[in-house]
Amino acid sequence: MDDTDTLPRTVLWLSAHPEPRSLNAAMRSRGIRRLREQGHSVLESDLYAMGWDPVLRAADGGRSDATERRFRVSEDTRAAHLAGLQDPAVAREQEKLLAADALVVQFPLWWYGMPAILKGWFDRVLVSGFAFGTDPSTGRRLRFEQGPFVGKRALVALTLGDRPRAVGPRGKSGELTELLFGLLHGTLAYTGFDVLPPWALPSADRLEEIGPAAEDLGARLDGLFSEAPLPYRPQFTGDYTEQWELAPHVSPGETGLSIHLDAPHRGGDAA
Amino acid sequence: MDDTDTLPRTVLWLSAHPEPRSLNAAMRSRGIRRLREQGHSVLESDLYAMGWDPVLRAADGGRSDATERRFRVSEDTRAAHLAGLQDPAVAREQEKLLAADALVVQFPLWWYGMPAILKGWFDRVLVSGFAFGTDPSTGRRLRFEQGPFVGKRALVALTLGDRPRAVGPRGKSGELTELLFGLLHGTLAYTGFDVLPPWALPSADRLEEIGPAAEDLGARLDGLFSEAPLPYRPQFTGDYTEQWELAPHVSPGETGLSIHLDAPHRGGDAA
Repeated sequence: MDDTDTLPRTVLWLSAHPEPRSLNAAMRSRGIRRLREQGHSVLESDLYAMGWDPVLRAADGGRSDATERRFRVSEDTRAAHLAGLQDPAVAREQEKLLAADALVVQFPLWWYGMPAILKGWFDRVLVSGFAFGTDPSTGRRLRFEQGPFVGKRALVALTLGDRPRAVGPRGKSGELTELLFGLLHGTLAYTGFDVLPPWALPSADRLEEIGPAAEDLGARLDGLFSEAPLPYRPQFTGDYTEQWELAPHVSPGETGLSIHLDAPHRGGDAA
Repeated sequence: MDDTDTLPRTVLWLSAHPEPRSLNAAMRSRGIRRLREQGHSVLESDLYAMGWDPVLRAADGGRSDATERRFRVSEDTRAAHLAGLQDPAVAREQEKLLAADALVVQFPLWWYGMPAILKGWFDRVLVSGFAFGTDPSTGRRLRFEQGPFVGKRALVALTLGDRPRAVGPRGKSGELTELLFGLLHGTLAYTGFDVLPPWALPSADRLEEIGPAAEDLGARLDGLFSEAPLPYRPQFTGDYTEQWELAPHVSPGETGLSIHLDAPHRGGDAA
């Protein structure tokens, strides 16, 4: 850890739980306090408390009359963003994200994914021209190591009902890095974040004492700007073909989601 | 295919796209027509058209006063379901699901997952005592081969922007059976469905002619009741330990989401 790791930064804490007295809410307030004790500024998006609307609609394309012509999700939300015609609630979230040096995404795992209200934050906030697609001024392809959020870090923190081994390497639910690949790799790494290994509290329904779990998450938060991120492969330096497939010379013959991690870092793989 | 495969059945078509003139909407209407031409009855849940509310709230626990006591998501939604105190909109979806012999889940892949409005269908409709947990009358554990939807089939059908190889075995987004493991295995198989290999239309933004794609999906719909499902391992017959981990004698030493498929059926694996 060098000196820069202890500089005060700005963190956006994005979370979703319907009950303000829940375990998730308690973890949230403790986590935010921990970050502030470290000198960081914390921006908050507590989606249930905000009454966040997660449903992407034609209005997200900046048009009041949805019947005038066919709504094209990607093109029209991009156009609305570039023209400043988005829902102000969406624009505010984009501004928070731009201001943040790190994003914490905290939620209870429901049906092995994010609660709908949180999924809809990504659906509505991460529009083309802001989070992906081509850069409106340079034409550069905005993704992965060219993504708009390069330099920012992301930590996913979740509670789940499954027992610890159910999310282990041979667990029935799969490892979280694989189970959450669409979020960790397809969303966060895709848009340029350095993605930390997710933090999880299994058997959350049986927790009797929050202290050790909060301390465990707290330790991860202390390392938010110093911990090594998941070593996802870069996309523009020859590891992938033009068809977005791993090049034949990279981990030849191997399949499965873990091939997208740089091999020397993979558990049990010394190749 | 034996005679029973051509009997008329009931299918629930669950879908989510904000634009009634979209490719997804056209695929939906053609798919439903195809099923009806085969003699099947089709129930429809077109979530945008229905104005479906995807946000699970304390009211889903059957309580009007959210402040009276702490809302416990799983316990309280179960209690509301068993007491008949659910939102009628949720109860109607449960009734459709009970009436259906098969479920088609159709959507555009947004950020490598379901649109929020669709994720929230699962969050709100699949409550404990109905879709998982313990059977309220027998105490039986409702999951996988003991799940409440045993005997029903499920087909996930989606459009995506990625090119075909990006969702191939070495593609940057992962194979759909792995990318969608939380839906296919953690949700549909978990609740007892026989889950068919997903159908997908990559490069959907560049499609110029719907005919071939609609015919391709139509062929899959023709096999909805005869095609072999994904061979997910049973959970209660020794393949898994009490900790929900694959038993040491099953695919020893292997990891990754594909270990949950019965080995002889896995591509490229003759073990």
